[in-house]
Amino acid sequence: MSNHLYALILAGGSGTRLWPRSRASLPKQFLAITRSDLTMLQEAQARLEPLVTPERVLVATGAASVATVRDQLPNVPAANILGEPQGRGTAAAIGLAAIHLRHRDPDAVMAVVTADHLIARTELFRQTLATAAQGARDGWLVTIGIQPTYPETGYGYIEVNPSDAAKRGEAVPVARFVEKPNRARAEEFFRAGNYYWNAGMFVWTVSRILDEIAHLMPGLFEGLTAIERSLGTPAESETFEHVWPRLPNQTIDYGVMEKAERVAVVPVDLGWSDVGSWAAVYDLLPKDERANAVVGRHLSSDTQRSLIYSPRRLVATLGLDAMIVVDTDDVLLIAPRSRAQDVKLLVDRLKAEGLDEYR
Amino acid sequence: MSNHLYALILAGGSGTRLWPRSRASLPKQFLAITRSDLTMLQEAQARLEPLVTPERVLVATGAASVATVRDQLPNVPAANILGEPQGRGTAAAIGLAAIHLRHRDPDAVMAVVTADHLIARTELFRQTLATAAQGARDGWLVTIGIQPTYPETGYGYIEVNPSDAAKRGEAVPVARFVEKPNRARAEEFFRAGNYYWNAGMFVWTVSRILDEIAHLMPGLFEGLTAIERSLGTPAESETFEHVWPRLPNQTIDYGVMEKAERVAVVPVDLGWSDVGSWAAVYDLLPKDERANAVVGRHLSSDTQRSLIYSPRRLVATLGLDAMIVVDTDDVLLIAPRSRAQDVKLLVDRLKAEGLDEYR
Repeated sequence: MSNHLYALILAGGSGTRLWPRSRASLPKQFLAITRSDLTMLQEAQARLEPLVTPERVLVATGAASVATVRDQLPNVPAANILGEPQGRGTAAAIGLAAIHLRHRDPDAVMAVVTADHLIARTELFRQTLATAAQGARDGWLVTIGIQPTYPETGYGYIEVNPSDAAKRGEAVPVARFVEKPNRARAEEFFRAGNYYWNAGMFVWTVSRILDEIAHLMPGLFEGLTAIERSLGTPAESETFEHVWPRLPNQTIDYGVMEKAERVAVVPVDLGWSDVGSWAAVYDLLPKDERANAVVGRHLSSDTQRSLIYSPRRLVATLGLDAMIVVDTDDVLLIAPRSRAQDVKLLVDRLKAEGLDEYR
Repeated sequence: MSNHLYALILAGGSGTRLWPRSRASLPKQFLAITRSDLTMLQEAQARLEPLVTPERVLVATGAASVATVRDQLPNVPAANILGEPQGRGTAAAIGLAAIHLRHRDPDAVMAVVTADHLIARTELFRQTLATAAQGARDGWLVTIGIQPTYPETGYGYIEVNPSDAAKRGEAVPVARFVEKPNRARAEEFFRAGNYYWNAGMFVWTVSRILDEIAHLMPGLFEGLTAIERSLGTPAESETFEHVWPRLPNQTIDYGVMEKAERVAVVPVDLGWSDVGSWAAVYDLLPKDERANAVVGRHLSSDTQRSLIYSPRRLVATLGLDAMIVVDTDDVLLIAPRSRAQDVKLLVDRLKAEGLDEYR
């Protein structure tokens, strides 16, 4: 059943919400955030095994991060690491991987997964990919729908018919993709039970996704076709360098998924988190008896409900409640947990204050 | 007038209230706390000039800190730095300096000043010492009384007769030394106007203070006499090593000042601070437009009334109010300003938690 199953790990993100640990030059997927032994990218690759072996893993990342990916995933062949000179959105990244796979194996089934999300239930994750791969072989574009645990307003949702809502772990037809809702609609979706978070994970055959791109994104398809023709020829890298910057910059969700026919979702509760802020990191980490989440050494007096993230330095706190403390070699961040989303404001200000070296 | 005027800088303190900047091995007098260019000890010596030249400055410190003092005060002759194998209180430290001075100059007038306090008005300070030295030559034990600026409960007070209360900058007789008062009495002293803070600064002739020690602390005097007889002989260091640990451990205030006759005080407002906590450091530093006191680089969003003390690392804060952040190479301290006095509790806990390397 896992014959011909490949995986594309999307590792191009440059999130700033875990600043100062994550930097423009070292985004969170390349960091060990919640585990000390593996980076998020390494976790993303490890949880594919044994369903998808390293030889069948592709990674899409920024050109500047190719060396980092090679270092972190030594078992993934160097040729499988696709460096993007500029970010052109997930549609181009997925399309590029699809033509590389078609060139190598026209019958390839392709799972698209993310490098910067956490998945607690890895066995269930692989079962879900296998289920989705079967749906893909049957001709569906399959997405993974995450069972919501609260009414989040920051994600897109996937709606299914209410009669399909109870079907956990099997592929059911998607009724509709819904963009990020406001608070009231998010609460409605959460109560209704037939809406799932769109976590950006997909499974399809390369032939099906390339057909959809040809149909729905002809400009992208034209560019991809030019690149595909050059693969394995002396013109390969010149063609790529020329075509890539001219590809339309679009997400696969908007460019393909929202408009395509025969789209299915496998709803599942994977223990998924996008680790989208230091507050989320706090939620994910184990707590001590005063509800502090500590990475590193903490000398505490009367401190509770706080995240202390300091792998190197001793952090001594007195009388803190619900705070975030993140220490790095050159920057120290302190904020209330409730303000975790505003860390990106600080990053914006770095530029304004001429402190680019800290971004 | 400054003929025969010498100064003893007491540099033996091992305060922990500015931890983690100050450490057991590097107390605050050896640090640049409020100025970036001079340590507190260097400031203490510099503000004596030109009234007392470096050749006439003695320094009493722990034996382990002698090398630090030599490094920091290269113009003070090495022989003037008195290393104490163990701390035996200010009476022994002052007595030891007095016999060294008498050995060198029987007519010496001796000012005793501190290395770990801040004095803003240095010209007035030297005028005050000169005034006190005249009183000393007239046979008085003279102390410097600091005009209180609020009802502090952590200091001893010096009381004068109400009729002498208006006499700023001249020596007036002391009515009484008062130990640290409770809150109600401190407020009473503050209102009354004839009470001054005892800042541990004194001026006297060596003959007068040694006479008082002979009279009031005969055990100490006996030991000092043995040491004095050995000065300049081959037995000098052996005698010192033998006698010193057996000297009574007492303060000059309790051992001499509270019981002696003919004690005077020069009341003065020197802009004095004992820099006794990070809250005091906050008070001493200039503030930005949001009332933050910043040493180092601070990236602030919605932060006010806070002390950011981080000479090396960028500190980014979001939504902080009235906090203390002190960063060092190996320890980071975070606490509300209102809890600054409790930093010593954290230092106490270091031992309990086996973290001696951070003390």
